[in-house]
Amino acid sequence: AEVKKIAVIAGDGIGPEVVAEAEKVLKRTEELFGYKFQTEHALFGGIAIDEKGTPLPQETLDICQKADAVLLGAVGGPKWDNNPKELRPETGLLGIRKALGLFSNLRPAVVFDCLKDASTLKAEVLEGTDLIVVRELTGGIYFGEKFRRETENGQEAVDTCAYNVNEVERIVRQAFEIAQKRRKKLASVDKANVLETSRLWREVVIKVAPEYPDVELEHVLVDNCAMQLLRRPSSFDVIVTENMFGDILSDEAAMLTGSIGMLSSASLGEGSFGLYEPVHGSAPDIAGQNLANPIATILSVALMFRMTFGYADAADAIERAVSDVLNAGHRTGDIAVDKSKAIGTTEMGDMIVAAI
Amino acid sequence: AEVKKIAVIAGDGIGPEVVAEAEKVLKRTEELFGYKFQTEHALFGGIAIDEKGTPLPQETLDICQKADAVLLGAVGGPKWDNNPKELRPETGLLGIRKALGLFSNLRPAVVFDCLKDASTLKAEVLEGTDLIVVRELTGGIYFGEKFRRETENGQEAVDTCAYNVNEVERIVRQAFEIAQKRRKKLASVDKANVLETSRLWREVVIKVAPEYPDVELEHVLVDNCAMQLLRRPSSFDVIVTENMFGDILSDEAAMLTGSIGMLSSASLGEGSFGLYEPVHGSAPDIAGQNLANPIATILSVALMFRMTFGYADAADAIERAVSDVLNAGHRTGDIAVDKSKAIGTTEMGDMIVAAI
Ligand SMILES: CC(C)[C@H](C(=O)O)[C@@H](O)C(=O)O
Ligand SMILES: CC(C)[C@H](C(=O)O)[C@@H](O)C(=O)O
Repeated sequence: AEVKKIAVIAGDGIGPEVVAEAEKVLKRTEELFGYKFQTEHALFGGIAIDEKGTPLPQETLDICQKADAVLLGAVGGPKWDNNPKELRPETGLLGIRKALGLFSNLRPAVVFDCLKDASTLKAEVLEGTDLIVVRELTGGIYFGEKFRRETENGQEAVDTCAYNVNEVERIVRQAFEIAQKRRKKLASVDKANVLETSRLWREVVIKVAPEYPDVELEHVLVDNCAMQLLRRPSSFDVIVTENMFGDILSDEAAMLTGSIGMLSSASLGEGSFGLYEPVHGSAPDIAGQNLANPIATILSVALMFRMTFGYADAADAIERAVSDVLNAGHRTGDIAVDKSKAIGTTEMGDMIVAAI
Repeated sequence: AEVKKIAVIAGDGIGPEVVAEAEKVLKRTEELFGYKFQTEHALFGGIAIDEKGTPLPQETLDICQKADAVLLGAVGGPKWDNNPKELRPETGLLGIRKALGLFSNLRPAVVFDCLKDASTLKAEVLEGTDLIVVRELTGGIYFGEKFRRETENGQEAVDTCAYNVNEVERIVRQAFEIAQKRRKKLASVDKANVLETSRLWREVVIKVAPEYPDVELEHVLVDNCAMQLLRRPSSFDVIVTENMFGDILSDEAAMLTGSIGMLSSASLGEGSFGLYEPVHGSAPDIAGQNLANPIATILSVALMFRMTFGYADAADAIERAVSDVLNAGHRTGDIAVDKSKAIGTTEMGDMIVAAI
């Protein structure tokens, strides 16, 4: 098989631990399916600030740009929280998204059977919840001009939110295409009753919608969406929205499944290149103690196989292995009912590897 | 007693019906407590568009400006949804907030005992939830410059989000003061890792916090807040945030209580003037059928009594009357378990009036 290059960014906190288990999975799929991966590690986030003086060193970008896909653990932690902007892990995150042209962030929010009761939502409300938030990732208020100026009312801060037709159209088309491969329902979320960018957004959605006649489209205002996610989560299939709204709604959606520690995500650009990472953060409080749950990162590998490489067989095998291990009752501390029986990060990784 | 002037805006959909019940309550408190109210009705929203060609006629503004407080039913409906911007009810809403200087929107999210099971959240998670979202209402991306321009990537839309120190300081101080009268906990919500306006916001919070040493302060990122509201709703007391985040989070918070149809809100400026309205919308689908629940509007009167007039005795009496009627098992259709036993809007209003 063709050699696939994977840039591996372990990052901070529990990042290195969960990524190590995902790498075991990569290795095992090479043996079992004959695929060939060449991994290259790169520094990013807090550790890059410490070792290179910047959260996104040029050589990390180079490694990612030469790769077919990126596997990311997690970045950030209290150690860097009070740094000036250019020395913060988040700045690296925004930088890598922009530099790699990752304009689309897919966050599936599904309920794992074994975690049904972990949600704060009632089981009957959650039943059947399986949605995906498609978030625009390189535009909007995140990347618009920002500045301060003096006024008679004290200093003023300004953020600019801008979207052009092309930016909206590419993400909206992608969302329609994803919906076509799923339950064929798309909710486009905006605040068209207040924002000009939302009115443009909605115009573009209305313009392209006729090309996807098989997809049932609804326009939902962002405040209403925050409510409907709570009231009828299972009625959503694909939700597409701009950067800032997507940040908020994808976190709400992930949390309501109760399975947030198990969810993976993909950030995509043009073509098949993608960056894959768990939805959870760097959890500095449990870092280095073999306590972290590696499943979300391992499932990020499966997502990479499916979306970037087209290795559906291996992706299926990984997902099935995860299910089997969970069904056999094995749990890391975060998802264990009886914490005294919880297993560690490496044990969970080994079991999944063995089950593939 | 001094005559208090109340501008009454019935609005659209179920607005006139619920406001009529609230006016019965006003009348009854005059009889029982000796207060004197002078009400003046004003056109606003869709009905003002139909009758006056604008959602916010100058005479409505005049009536509000001469009043001590405003009672609002609800505005909007599908009839006006596709109108051009200046002929939409929302435009009137934004206009009245700005014109009356209502920079602060208070949305208490509490759980009504009789509606505990109406929430999609588990009862044990909801237990003890009693929070208030203090939303900045006349700044941020709602009121910043908006425009379109041509680019090589198609038309571009721009919204501007701006906050100055004074705007942030007045709302933050108000939130601290509200927290001092409650459980003394304040969560300030921002996106300081990305937005310049949020960094200014956080600086101001940090600057004024030492003046409220009895209030326990936490800074919460908006995406994290959307999650924590689901995970630990009862741990919040007062949440203060900017306009757009407040729009989303206050709706999420209201919905998770399961009591959204019963919640009232206040919009305040400098001094004691305030606009009071139910959190729910104009529900055009059930308008004119004596089906609407008037409780949120009646409780808005209680909130007005407490916050603008300082009539705590009458406010208490109204709130107690509502509890008594609910405890006696009376329900409108929206909150009835057995819909066949549901009572109508006017019956519910009459019962509450009788119970005061
Ligand atoms: C860390 C932060 C800049 C980032 C974002 O807001 O995009 C994070 O919340 C996310 O969702 O990936
Ligand atoms: C109707 C709309 C303009 C308004 C807002 O976004 O402020 C509404 O959602 C609200 O929260 O009062």
